[in-house]
Amino acid sequence: MAESNALPLVELAEHFAKLPGIGMKTAQRLAYFVMSMTEADAKAFAEAIVKAHTTVHCCKICQNLTDKELCPICNDDRRDSETICVVENPKDVSAFERTREYKGVYHVLHGLISPIDNVTPDKLRIKELLQRVNNSEVKEVIMATNPTVEGEATAMYISKLLKPLGIKVTRLAFGLPIGGILEYADEVTLFKALENRNEI
Amino acid sequence: MAESNALPLVELAEHFAKLPGIGMKTAQRLAYFVMSMTEADAKAFAEAIVKAHTTVHCCKICQNLTDKELCPICNDDRRDSETICVVENPKDVSAFERTREYKGVYHVLHGLISPIDNVTPDKLRIKELLQRVNNSEVKEVIMATNPTVEGEATAMYISKLLKPLGIKVTRLAFGLPIGGILEYADEVTLFKALENRNEI
Repeated sequence: MAESNALPLVELAEHFAKLPGIGMKTAQRLAYFVMSMTEADAKAFAEAIVKAHTTVHCCKICQNLTDKELCPICNDDRRDSETICVVENPKDVSAFERTREYKGVYHVLHGLISPIDNVTPDKLRIKELLQRVNNSEVKEVIMATNPTVEGEATAMYISKLLKPLGIKVTRLAFGLPIGGILEYADEVTLFKALENRNEI
Repeated sequence: MAESNALPLVELAEHFAKLPGIGMKTAQRLAYFVMSMTEADAKAFAEAIVKAHTTVHCCKICQNLTDKELCPICNDDRRDSETICVVENPKDVSAFERTREYKGVYHVLHGLISPIDNVTPDKLRIKELLQRVNNSEVKEVIMATNPTVEGEATAMYISKLLKPLGIKVTRLAFGLPIGGILEYADEVTLFKALENRNEI
C-alpha cells in the first residue's frame, strides 16, 4: 500500500483516526491534506495542539476551560454571581452565551452521572459546586443538563444535595422548540409542552 | 462565548476547520477532544504532523509520497519497470496495490489538468514522466486517471505526448462495476459496457 510507503504518513493518519467521528479513510485523507499544507501551516497546526493542551485548564471557580486563572465570565463584575447555571460541558456554556440573555454565572460538571459508562458522581465537578454554594451567597441553581436519562439523573442528584442547604433549584423548561412544527414533535415533548402550558 | 474564554482553543479549532470536510462545529468538537487527550497523546499528535511534513517527500522516480529516497515500489526489483501506471494522486496507488494484481510501477501526477482551477500541464509531474520514458526502457503507459472530464483530458494530453515516442499508451476499461446492478447504472456507463463488450 502507498500508505506503507511512508510510515510517518501512516502514523499521522492513525492519530487523526483517534479523533471522534473520523474513520480510517477520512484520517488518511486528512494526512494527505497535511502533506499539501505549507510547512509553516503544518508547524502552526502542531503548535496549536500543544499550546491548547498546555495553556488551557479549568477556571478555579466555574470549571469552564480558560487560559487565565479565572474565566472571563467569573471575572466579570457585571455578572450575577448569585445565580449559577449548571451545565454538562464547556460547549453548553457557549450555547447559553449565544442567547445573550443569561446574566448569571455557570458551573461546568464535565460530564453526567452514567453508571453504565462508569461515571460516578465523584468523577464530576459536583464537590466544587457544593463548596462554591457553601462559600458564597448563591440564591438559585439552574440545572441545565440535557433532557436525557443521564441529564435528568444528574439534575435530580444535585438538586437533592442542594435543597437541604435552602437554595432554590430550578430546571430548564421543556416544550416545543421555537420554529418547530407540532406535527413532527415527539410524544414526550408534546406532553411536556401541554403539561407546562402557560396562560396568555 | 466560551470559545473566547480560551484563545488557544479557538486557534486550534480554526486549524481543524481548515482541513477538508471539517466545518467550524466539528472543528470545535475536535478542539475540545484534544483537551481531553493526555498530554503525551497531544504531543505525539503534534509531532506526527511535523514529522510527516518534514520527512515525507516525493519519490525521485515515480513522484509517489515516501520517507525514503526511492519508494518501496520503485526500489523493488520484482516489479516490472517497463509498465507505468499513471495516476492522479498517491491514494490511487494504494487503490491499485490493494488489487494485488498489478506488477508494474506507477507515476503520480499530483493532480489533473483543469484550466478552470488554474491547473495547467506544467503544474503536474508530466515532464518527470517524459524524462522517465526517455531515459529508461518503457513499453506501456497505462492512463489510470478518473473517468471525469479532467481525467479524460489529462489522459488524452499525455497520450499525445507519448505516442510519437513509439510507446504503447492504454486506458483503463470502463463498464459495469462488479457487483453493480444494471438497473442502477447510468447511461454513459451502460453505453461503455455495451461498446466494450467481449466475446465469452
